[in-house]
Amino acid sequence: MPDPALLDRLRDAVAAGFAAETEFLQAMVRFPSLRGAEAPLQDWLHRELGARGYAMDRFTLADVPLDAHPQAAPMVEADPARSVQVVAAHRAPNPTGRSLILQGHIDVVPEGPAEMWTHPPYAGVIRDGWLYGRGAHDMKAGVAAMIFAMEAIRACGLEPAADVYLQTVTEEESTGNGALATLLRGYRAEAALIPEPTGHAITRAQTGTIWFRLKVRGVPVHVMVAQDGSNAIMSAFALIQALHAHTKRLNAAGRDNPWYGGVRDPIKFNPGIIRGGDWASSTPAWCEVDCRIGLLPGTTPEEAMAGVEAAVREAAKGDAFLANNPPEVTFHGFRTEPYVLEPGSEAEAVLAEAHRAVHGGAMPERLSTAVNDTRYYGRQMGVPGLCYGPRGEGAHGFDERTSLADLQTCTLTIAAFIAEWCGVRPLR
Amino acid sequence: MPDPALLDRLRDAVAAGFAAETEFLQAMVRFPSLRGAEAPLQDWLHRELGARGYAMDRFTLADVPLDAHPQAAPMVEADPARSVQVVAAHRAPNPTGRSLILQGHIDVVPEGPAEMWTHPPYAGVIRDGWLYGRGAHDMKAGVAAMIFAMEAIRACGLEPAADVYLQTVTEEESTGNGALATLLRGYRAEAALIPEPTGHAITRAQTGTIWFRLKVRGVPVHVMVAQDGSNAIMSAFALIQALHAHTKRLNAAGRDNPWYGGVRDPIKFNPGIIRGGDWASSTPAWCEVDCRIGLLPGTTPEEAMAGVEAAVREAAKGDAFLANNPPEVTFHGFRTEPYVLEPGSEAEAVLAEAHRAVHGGAMPERLSTAVNDTRYYGRQMGVPGLCYGPRGEGAHGFDERTSLADLQTCTLTIAAFIAEWCGVRPLR
Repeated sequence: MPDPALLDRLRDAVAAGFAAETEFLQAMVRFPSLRGAEAPLQDWLHRELGARGYAMDRFTLADVPLDAHPQAAPMVEADPARSVQVVAAHRAPNPTGRSLILQGHIDVVPEGPAEMWTHPPYAGVIRDGWLYGRGAHDMKAGVAAMIFAMEAIRACGLEPAADVYLQTVTEEESTGNGALATLLRGYRAEAALIPEPTGHAITRAQTGTIWFRLKVRGVPVHVMVAQDGSNAIMSAFALIQALHAHTKRLNAAGRDNPWYGGVRDPIKFNPGIIRGGDWASSTPAWCEVDCRIGLLPGTTPEEAMAGVEAAVREAAKGDAFLANNPPEVTFHGFRTEPYVLEPGSEAEAVLAEAHRAVHGGAMPERLSTAVNDTRYYGRQMGVPGLCYGPRGEGAHGFDERTSLADLQTCTLTIAAFIAEWCGVRPLR
Repeated sequence: MPDPALLDRLRDAVAAGFAAETEFLQAMVRFPSLRGAEAPLQDWLHRELGARGYAMDRFTLADVPLDAHPQAAPMVEADPARSVQVVAAHRAPNPTGRSLILQGHIDVVPEGPAEMWTHPPYAGVIRDGWLYGRGAHDMKAGVAAMIFAMEAIRACGLEPAADVYLQTVTEEESTGNGALATLLRGYRAEAALIPEPTGHAITRAQTGTIWFRLKVRGVPVHVMVAQDGSNAIMSAFALIQALHAHTKRLNAAGRDNPWYGGVRDPIKFNPGIIRGGDWASSTPAWCEVDCRIGLLPGTTPEEAMAGVEAAVREAAKGDAFLANNPPEVTFHGFRTEPYVLEPGSEAEAVLAEAHRAVHGGAMPERLSTAVNDTRYYGRQMGVPGLCYGPRGEGAHGFDERTSLADLQTCTLTIAAFIAEWCGVRPLR
């Protein structure tokens, strides 16, 4: 349990630094760090963290042996050599505490039609205690929290008594290869905390995720000889319907799952992007659909992928167009395992104490029906991967926003957690 | 009936010029004259026809008062100022025969995925008597036929004894505004022939065409909270299904149509282009579908457009997502009237005689379930709009090709038609 006097000092330090933290978050939101375009923000973070005295390491996905790793996911539309990772190391001389990785992703998903935003998605507008923008909530707020939690400790004249790595990564929204690359670069610690915006709850479990692309191709004709429905767009729709039915069967089978039995339809199937055809008056010759489907603990990515392939194959048999033009399924991103944070770890207990000290109650837990990067620390390194962070709204949607009041309490919680997990000693 | 001796001379002249005609067609196919990119081919035709001694007129859609015309169609994605039209005039001094417009469109529809072509779509490859390529069949072959029919007459030491306008136009595949622009420029004649690739048949009637774009917009969420089917892509499919049902009702009602009663499902509905969503793991916030639907003689474009709007409105009521996010329908291209070539015209009789002289039988007739530009001559000018031309395959599809043997006979038929309709006199 953090010393109450230290907690008070940290609270004051977080409060004193919060204007700077808010500005820092605003600056981050103003970088449109979409997939493939994260490097400028990473360069800025490299400079900002370097200026704070950390030992810096900046590298790309091409600098690590990603291809050779069984958990690496294919990157079809992004260049590994342009995907920059940043690690800021606090190296404690003669460490006495427990080491820690603080990690956050800085890639954001596309903002969609600009006219649907009340405030421009990359302006970082603040209104009534909320900071708006793509990535404000998922998860640049968390990145600000972890950096300014360390700042608060230093502002108290202290520093962690163990090694702490602040990592900002890419590819969380598409493959997870950024987090994996930090492991391949060699970074290890006794616990990892990722401040994804969980609303001050610990993530007990996450589903896995598979990305796949359906490709329908066929011989088009002039619309003058078209018969209803015999076209690539309609056939793609038949595949989507078959995958909805497949998902329904999976969710029915998942009612006994030890973790997700109580969650309604925990496996989500999403046809997220569609494109097809070239001309209103030509029957479409091609259609592609980028999809995402989840998988529950107890299922491997390979099993989930085989299930998708079988469902598509079966559906194609029943479609006049597809029977002659078999659709292709390619796996072009996520192929992640589910992950359960087994209860009972010392790291979780320390985080729960910090949460109680700040919020005054038990740390709630949540089951996520999406992925986050903690799986790598839990499954690949065998240390607790804690996913806990601030509160906001609109992840992947319009008017995404983070609550500044919650960002401040979360920054304090993380500072208290670091102080207790790593221990503190006077600043050199 | 063409004089048999003249027909023999024309046959020899067409044969003697056929290598040049084939090369000319090949050169035309090598221009990727997609919508918005027709100008270089029009410039080339302007030079080629100018070199043959025609009086040339080159203008764009921005040079005529298109907006003020009730039959002009909206151009959402093409710039009228870049859409070049070419008219080559043969002006007969003291004309004794009947004037004629020969018109062909040089715009082509997109070629689709290149890997689905056996021969590259803009290479003009010749194999076993076929010339391959996008537009070879629809309708650059017809353009070559009309130009080289005139060349054959001249090669016999003759010229038409009436005014003949050779017109190459754009926008046939999207609005019809190219043909309309030649009328607005002032060109008139006592008959018009458009050598669309009809396989040596006269087009008795054509359906009208409406283009429309469905726009679905809504509030997306992270896939982790998505429920099956509540997304813009799925709602767009609900609209497509409703429009298929609407088309079925229209075809049922059309069974009594005096022209199309015997044609199975003459009204074609085609969802031709779809695009939606930005990210596999975000529920799509938007989806757009570009569609085409036909209409039968007896129906106005306004009635057909109102029918589409009503069907979409009705379908939206039954969809949870759309009820809160009403879809938009915009009409972004074709809004054309059907057209019937009333039997019994002198022009058609002359063409039928030419056909008989070359092919040895009655000229077959066809009912088209798509549009062609003859409607402007028939409906706006009140003169027969004859749609008759060579034979090929794969309009709007892959491996589009035109039969060279048929191109040669068709060139002769058109030459014989010109000679009889316009009369001939010795070349000046």
